[in-house]
Amino acid sequence: MTFPTTVPTDLEIARNAALKPLDEIAERMGLGRHLIEGYGEHVAKIKLSAIDELSDRPKAKYVVVSAVTPTPLGEGKTTTTVGLGQALNQIGKRATIALRQPSMGPTFGIKGGAAGGGYSQVVPMDVLNLHLTGDFHAVTAAHNMLAAVLDNHLYQGNASGLDLHSITWRRVLDVNDRALRNIVIGLGSRTDGVPRQSGFDITAASEVMAIFALSRSLQEMRERFGRIVVGYTRSGDPVTAEQIGGAGAMAAIMRDALKPNLLQTLENTPVLVHAGPFGNIAHGNSSVVADLIGIRGGDFLVTEAGFGADMGAERFFNIKCRASGLVPDAAVVVTTVRALKAMSGRHTIVPGAPLPPALLEENPDEVHEGGANLRKQIDNIRLHGVPLVVAINAFPGDHPSEHAAIAEIAASEGARSAVCTHFADGGKGARELAEAVVEAADEPAEFRFLYPDEASLREKIEAVATKVYGAEGVDYDPAAARQLDTYERNGFGTLPVCIAKTHLSLSSDPALKGAPTGWRLPVREVRASVGAGFIYPICGDMRTMPGLSADPAAHHIDIDADGNVLNLS
Amino acid sequence: MTFPTTVPTDLEIARNAALKPLDEIAERMGLGRHLIEGYGEHVAKIKLSAIDELSDRPKAKYVVVSAVTPTPLGEGKTTTTVGLGQALNQIGKRATIALRQPSMGPTFGIKGGAAGGGYSQVVPMDVLNLHLTGDFHAVTAAHNMLAAVLDNHLYQGNASGLDLHSITWRRVLDVNDRALRNIVIGLGSRTDGVPRQSGFDITAASEVMAIFALSRSLQEMRERFGRIVVGYTRSGDPVTAEQIGGAGAMAAIMRDALKPNLLQTLENTPVLVHAGPFGNIAHGNSSVVADLIGIRGGDFLVTEAGFGADMGAERFFNIKCRASGLVPDAAVVVTTVRALKAMSGRHTIVPGAPLPPALLEENPDEVHEGGANLRKQIDNIRLHGVPLVVAINAFPGDHPSEHAAIAEIAASEGARSAVCTHFADGGKGARELAEAVVEAADEPAEFRFLYPDEASLREKIEAVATKVYGAEGVDYDPAAARQLDTYERNGFGTLPVCIAKTHLSLSSDPALKGAPTGWRLPVREVRASVGAGFIYPICGDMRTMPGLSADPAAHHIDIDADGNVLNLS
Repeated sequence: MTFPTTVPTDLEIARNAALKPLDEIAERMGLGRHLIEGYGEHVAKIKLSAIDELSDRPKAKYVVVSAVTPTPLGEGKTTTTVGLGQALNQIGKRATIALRQPSMGPTFGIKGGAAGGGYSQVVPMDVLNLHLTGDFHAVTAAHNMLAAVLDNHLYQGNASGLDLHSITWRRVLDVNDRALRNIVIGLGSRTDGVPRQSGFDITAASEVMAIFALSRSLQEMRERFGRIVVGYTRSGDPVTAEQIGGAGAMAAIMRDALKPNLLQTLENTPVLVHAGPFGNIAHGNSSVVADLIGIRGGDFLVTEAGFGADMGAERFFNIKCRASGLVPDAAVVVTTVRALKAMSGRHTIVPGAPLPPALLEENPDEVHEGGANLRKQIDNIRLHGVPLVVAINAFPGDHPSEHAAIAEIAASEGARSAVCTHFADGGKGARELAEAVVEAADEPAEFRFLYPDEASLREKIEAVATKVYGAEGVDYDPAAARQLDTYERNGFGTLPVCIAKTHLSLSSDPALKGAPTGWRLPVREVRASVGAGFIYPICGDMRTMPGLSADPAAHHIDIDADGNVLNLS
Repeated sequence: MTFPTTVPTDLEIARNAALKPLDEIAERMGLGRHLIEGYGEHVAKIKLSAIDELSDRPKAKYVVVSAVTPTPLGEGKTTTTVGLGQALNQIGKRATIALRQPSMGPTFGIKGGAAGGGYSQVVPMDVLNLHLTGDFHAVTAAHNMLAAVLDNHLYQGNASGLDLHSITWRRVLDVNDRALRNIVIGLGSRTDGVPRQSGFDITAASEVMAIFALSRSLQEMRERFGRIVVGYTRSGDPVTAEQIGGAGAMAAIMRDALKPNLLQTLENTPVLVHAGPFGNIAHGNSSVVADLIGIRGGDFLVTEAGFGADMGAERFFNIKCRASGLVPDAAVVVTTVRALKAMSGRHTIVPGAPLPPALLEENPDEVHEGGANLRKQIDNIRLHGVPLVVAINAFPGDHPSEHAAIAEIAASEGARSAVCTHFADGGKGARELAEAVVEAADEPAEFRFLYPDEASLREKIEAVATKVYGAEGVDYDPAAARQLDTYERNGFGTLPVCIAKTHLSLSSDPALKGAPTGWRLPVREVRASVGAGFIYPICGDMRTMPGLSADPAAHHIDIDADGNVLNLS
């Protein structure tokens, strides 16, 4: 394997890309020009009529890309998804990629954008990482429209009898702004609203985002908006967006956002970028609509699920596939040497700081130690009956013995694996992975949900906690237990669960590495996204509005004289 | 004149429009396909390179559409602008129209959208009235990015020494949300920011909006962002966006927004829709960039200025033309029978309520009484050396004797006038107006600013107050006087002034109708938009965040099964 350390920056590579007209990219998916609406020069939206129009085409193999428990730096899951898509095309399969849209908050914070990297990128990366076609802005606007309607409802007399202390609907902005986490609104004079405590979350955390990601049609999205619970009356009855007259306006605002966005990779593989729900308090997967179109677009649809297999993939299987009706044919578990070494518990990785030197030393034993995490994440995919491949995402500084260690772990689990160099080499670097994925997808899959709809909320939580996370059981704070009882009474008991916990451990404690055992999942609170259609128990502190660091990307991003965006990564 | 009372709704007319491909619309302006980027099917952005590329073309006649002092319902200025543009094309002149983008706040409030009306509309009106190409969202995002950088600056140690009580930068959202006018942010724990009072304005009130409307190039916009004053130190020194490291990120976020949006009217006249700064605390005019392109796009560029001639037109002349370097050739003063009757002071018009029956009775004398306002507004255009035409915008229920009364007033001032029925008849209904505008624009114009740059801020305020508003003088509250001294000391004294007062009277008291005399302008406070490049004295209560009514449009707007937006007006 060659791994040049002289790969140019993502922005340099992206700027030198040879982009093809989007009509041509759409054509690769069998989408006629009449189904495409250009948005600027290198992005298009796909009309929703494509779903019906393509419905008699054969279904592509549906591949979900997941990962081991990542470090705070991420393990190149998006890059691998892009590399795999490009590689499938290189070996003669027509492949489409589906990704979430990056959030502008982290782009201007510390994380940077999320367009993949190196020679496995989605382009144009500046458009992708900034507004794209404005879908996130539409989510922000629709969410805050409902908030304005809600506060106006209070101001105009509160006909529904909402209890001011039981209002769950906050506001959102797509920016890292800690000062907005906890605020008091409605101050001033009598005509300036009703004073109460509230706050802002980042737009990715909006239930509107989750709803739009899970809806199969405009009508379904409209109905889901109506079911949003904005708060409760003093007697504990839920009050919905429909009741206070906000759902129709939200649908008008979100109408065009429901059309998936079409972009391309550096190798001109079609990419659907659509929606970006949070990966902890929401399900962390790209849109159902994009997948309903992509599944008719060729031989393979490669879609990414957020964080490790315990998080994004579990929700992919039990929330997204439940909503879409689509059935996965194979999964990829992205693994890095550094992630497994970190899972040994011997290193501390801090975003923005250099990696600890000890982590960079050749140490296949440490990889084996951390391998318990990979074994459990493989198991988490198999729990759902889906064949899988372990993708070993190579980094400069990896040692062949360490890659071999990962391959051994995979083999001992009976799983395929492949070393990938798509960051440095583009699709060529992921051909072996692509071949393995084709084989896996040809195996008979026996996809199954982890729990049936009719299980109780507690049974669902316990199924995820014990079977996927490896907990011994679940402990509920009294408030959480009461909340679960209320939700069952309210008729929300048939919904799936989306457990909000750290993504940095299989457990709810980010300090526990590997595949922790002998622990119990503490549920301190339970909330409901009734419109999106899931209940989310909260285990640990979930931050729904990030902050900026002392020297955030926002201080450095700028434009040059030609209007090129600088220092966007 | 025929004025059918059976004109279909704006939405019905707009849906039945025969739209032409935007390439063809652009071609009418002499813009090649390479200068156009489609954004959805019926909107395009125009590349900024068009400004240079077209710079050797002959300049179009530049016509600003203003009005008498409007009622709270508006007097059809946008509709007249659209009708005039269509009519100019009908009489063989190549005309382009320039308008502000409507704000989503009022669209979901009581006002409805701002796409013109009847058979003089910009289409598609649903796209125009909702996101268009996302420029307002970009303004929101850029504004709030600076706010996040600012609060992070405080949180990370406040190196600039900002005085928490002297911070002038608030946040913005494009929604009518009174509960956000006055808020306390930064509550919670130590990691949740620095507690302080603040609030949200509507996006149209953002200085970012004014800057982007007044910039001639990306570089100029970038520099103006840097000059934004976000607050003051304890010793009174201004702290800028550049100092706290927010200006570059704002420019990256606003890069694409600076490209004007191209749409068309129902009669396929090209329309540039771009920017939408507030008409009281900002200058209330569409963008300089759009006009710099439109001025090379044919024989006529018809651009609208907000509110009456004392407001939008005064700022058009003294702020926008100062920034653009363009020189107007003619002006239109839109007048309605109801506006002049209201200016008689005998009627009270309440938005959302039916017009008072007495106002609908035939009464040319009352028109003559209110005519003092028209005379003064004519004078306000002539103060700037610009020839003008009075457009009598006909409404169903007007009486011919009342139109005649307006024509008499105009004639007695030596001004041309024309009765227009473009709402019911499209361009055909404004042909007489168009002929008069062509004549007026052929007169020798002697455009002049009302005051020179080097006049003091007080001299500038007094020039506008006494010459345009008809005040006897200006009274400054002590705080306002101190502020003016500070701004002069800070070197802001050469900026033009943008006096924030009610648009419902020539005076600062909305109850004073006609052309009030014997009053003095009370300046209670003075603020600075240093990046946008104007100082704005505040006279009266300026609401920068509207609220929703008891039954706002948001309760009724919805989508149908085909995704059509319902109840948008």
